[in-house]
Formats: sequence, structure tokens, C-alpha cells
Amino acid sequence: MLKRRHLLQAGAAALAAPASAAGTLAGVRALVFDVFGTVVDWRSSVIRDGNKLSASKKLNVDWARFADAWRAGYGPSMDKVRKGEMPWTRIDALHRMTLDLLLKEFRIEGLTESEIDDFNRVWHRLTPWPDSVAGLTRLKKRYVISTLSNGNTSLLVNMGKFGGLPWDCVLSAELSKHYKPDREVYLMAADLLGLRPDETMMVAAHLGDLRAAKAAGLKTAFVARPGEFGAGGKADLKPDASCDVSAADFVDLAEKLGA
Amino acid sequence: MLKRRHLLQAGAAALAAPASAAGTLAGVRALVFDVFGTVVDWRSSVIRDGNKLSASKKLNVDWARFADAWRAGYGPSMDKVRKGEMPWTRIDALHRMTLDLLLKEFRIEGLTESEIDDFNRVWHRLTPWPDSVAGLTRLKKRYVISTLSNGNTSLLVNMGKFGGLPWDCVLSAELSKHYKPDREVYLMAADLLGLRPDETMMVAAHLGDLRAAKAAGLKTAFVARPGEFGAGGKADLKPDASCDVSAADFVDLAEKLGA
Repeated sequence: MLKRRHLLQAGAAALAAPASAAGTLAGVRALVFDVFGTVVDWRSSVIRDGNKLSASKKLNVDWARFADAWRAGYGPSMDKVRKGEMPWTRIDALHRMTLDLLLKEFRIEGLTESEIDDFNRVWHRLTPWPDSVAGLTRLKKRYVISTLSNGNTSLLVNMGKFGGLPWDCVLSAELSKHYKPDREVYLMAADLLGLRPDETMMVAAHLGDLRAAKAAGLKTAFVARPGEFGAGGKADLKPDASCDVSAADFVDLAEKLGA
Repeated sequence: MLKRRHLLQAGAAALAAPASAAGTLAGVRALVFDVFGTVVDWRSSVIRDGNKLSASKKLNVDWARFADAWRAGYGPSMDKVRKGEMPWTRIDALHRMTLDLLLKEFRIEGLTESEIDDFNRVWHRLTPWPDSVAGLTRLKKRYVISTLSNGNTSLLVNMGKFGGLPWDCVLSAELSKHYKPDREVYLMAADLLGLRPDETMMVAAHLGDLRAAKAAGLKTAFVARPGEFGAGGKADLKPDASCDVSAADFVDLAEKLGA
């Protein structure tokens, strides 16, 4: 673990903003975090609760494939809302729509409504990456730290309690009735925190999120989560030129931001 | 201090909901807190920062009278928004409007714009009552705990950091573009937390707030803050019949709710 982290840090250091960039980041007052994949490991958590369900209900399911399929439904379902093909709908409900389809596709039968509802809430019980709590705790001493997730407020609040995430504030795309990467979400976050966009830094493992935040005027920090989609998955491994900072994990981010 | 607290507890115990009421409260999942006066002592905090200003700027001001006058402008200025006489305006801006009037009324001169802005932000630096952090920390183990204040989001976030308040979530009336006691504010809180109104309990030192929450379907807890308005002030001292629980302070509330 340590060895791998050192390798990642060495790699990130070469890609990180040069020391002189610290000046342009001196005005940052708040860090807002993408959550699914950036703060928490959704894939292993879905597999974990799937395996529990297999044990209690005598099921035989490839939960890794199930988790990937569930997550694959996420973007397209949000896009229907973003394009106005569906009225505003929370992630909890979008997750449930996809789950209902997958239960059929994977021929999973015999679950009660209460069991299906509970399994749908696995997204409220996602486990943080090993460095998340330690890194956030350190970053919190210097910055306001908040979620900025497409997950709905209650999902984020429950997840925060489940994982012991020390948020100063829980901001959800739900509050703007837009989903990332819509510009409105990023601008809402800065506005609610009483800051200019360039005093607010978006932290994410996904370049698409960071590019949209940057286009809205926020500063951006890339944190690599190479294991998000499992071995051979399509995780973004390196920052692009638009990123203000790049870090191997949240503890490294705290180090790079002087927190 | 201990003696006074015991007296208050004895008084509150007689008024509190009977033990059998615990059953009707078993469904409560989240506690949402009024903040100014209920969680923090705005009056002594304004006096504290006023005295600092007197020392640095050689002023001679009765800051207790100033604090009371500033707070007295709060309700009427919100009412202008609530009645549609003014567009949506944050508390920070309403506080500043009142402050500008009071600086003239109290003949306070020689402050720079930066000094006035900083003094206006004293409302972001209000000190918790002595029991607030301990009580909230205990309540957080059993319940989701959130602000539900007319203060704007950034004010509440900064205040939480200043006072070490361990909120799970920061909810502001701002998110509904209504001010308490408008019904919309209470219903928004339950909705964002993914709960029915009767799974949500409003905690406040002010009966008007609690009555409006109750009318919207929430459970209510009264916590006496006899010193909120200073000696001889107009604090609510006792719950009315509509309150589900009454407590002498937040630690007592944790005790009464089994947290």
C-alpha cells in the first residue's frame, strides 16, 4: 500500500502545478468535492452489499458486473433530466429505475419491496477511499469543505454519517435542479458559500467534471482514483492541462495545498 | 451554573412530555435546529466584537443596546421579504441594511468599508451556548442533526467552523427562498432530508418558530434560553401545550430523547 502510494505520488508530483502556481491558488477558500468515485468507492460497496444479499437470499449473481451496469445507467438517466426529457428526478429515483431494469436483466427474483428499497440505498452506504477521512480532516482545518455531487441531499447526508466524512456543508446538484456538468451547479455552490467562483475549487477524479467547473470559473484539482471502475476500468489516470492541481490522494492534496 | 441548570431541569421536567410520549417520537430521524438564540448566543457575541471595535477605534458605544437594536431590525426586515415588499434578500444583506442605519443612529464614525463589512460578519462568529457542542455531539449519534435557520448558507457554514458545531448538514431558509415561519421552509427541510414532516423535529427556543413547524407537521422540541435577550429580556421561558418535548439545554434534550 505504502509503496503504491509513493509511486503514485511521484507520478503526480511530475504532473502537479509548479510551485509558483501556489500564488494563484492563494485566494481559494472552499473545496467542493465530487463524491461518487472521488470520495467513496461505489464499486466495492455495491459488490459488498450484493454479496450480503446473495448470502441471505441464496442468489448467484456476478455483483461486479451488476455494479458496473448499475453505474452505467447513471449518466444516461441524468441526461434525460438534463435534456428536459424527464422532469426533475432525484438520483435515488434514477438509481431505482435502473435497479428495477437490472433485477430483470440479471434474473434476480424473490426480493420484497423493502429489500429492493434497502438495496437501492446502498448508494447511501458507500465506503470512503482509505485516505478520504484523513485527507478531508486535514483540508478542513484550512478550507471550507463541502460535497458538490449529483447525489441528492439525503443520500449525501446519510453517506457522510456512514463513512464519518467531516463535511462543513452538504451541497447537492438537487439544490439547483440541474445536474453536473451543467454550469448552474458549479455557480450555485460558489454563490451559496458566499464566494466568487475563483475562490472555490472543484476536486474530482473525473476530467469532464473538472473541465465544466473550470469553464464556470472555478479552480480545479484532479485526484486520481485508478481503481474506481475495477481492474481494466476506464478511470481518468492523469490530469489535463486545465487542472490547477493534481494529487495522488486527499492526503497528498492537503500537502500540495499547504493544509 | 450547575445549580441554575438543575433548577431549570426540574422546571422543564414538570413541563416535559410524559414518558408515554416517547412512543410517538420513536419515528423521529432528524433534528433541525433554529440557530440564532437557540444554538448560539448572538447578544454577547455582538457585544464582544463591539467592544473590540471600541478598543481599536476609540469609540464609546453601549454595545448591549446596539446589539438589541440590531436584532430588533431582523424580524421587520425579513417581513418585507416575506410580504413581497422586497425581492429575495439574504440575511447578510438585511443585517448590513440595519447596521448602516444603526451606525448613524449611534453616531459611530470613522469606520472603513472593510471594517464595517467585517463587523457585519460578527453574525458568522457567534459563540455557541456552553452546552451546544456537547449536546449536539451526543444527539448526532442517534439523529441526523441540521441547522434550519433564516441565516444564509455561508453564514451558517462559517459559524459552524467558528464554533465547532458538528452538523451533519447545513440547511438554510435561503434554499427555499422563504423565511421562517413560512411553511415552505419546514417542508423543504423534511423533503431534502428524505423524511416525512413527522419524522423531523424542529428544535428552538422560540415558540413562534415551533408553532409554525408543528402546523407544517413536524415534531417540536422547546429548549429554554432565558439569557438570549439579556437580563429582563423577552425570552420564551416555558413550552406551550403544542411542544412534544421540552428541555433545559441540549444535553438535557439528548437525555430526554435517549441519545
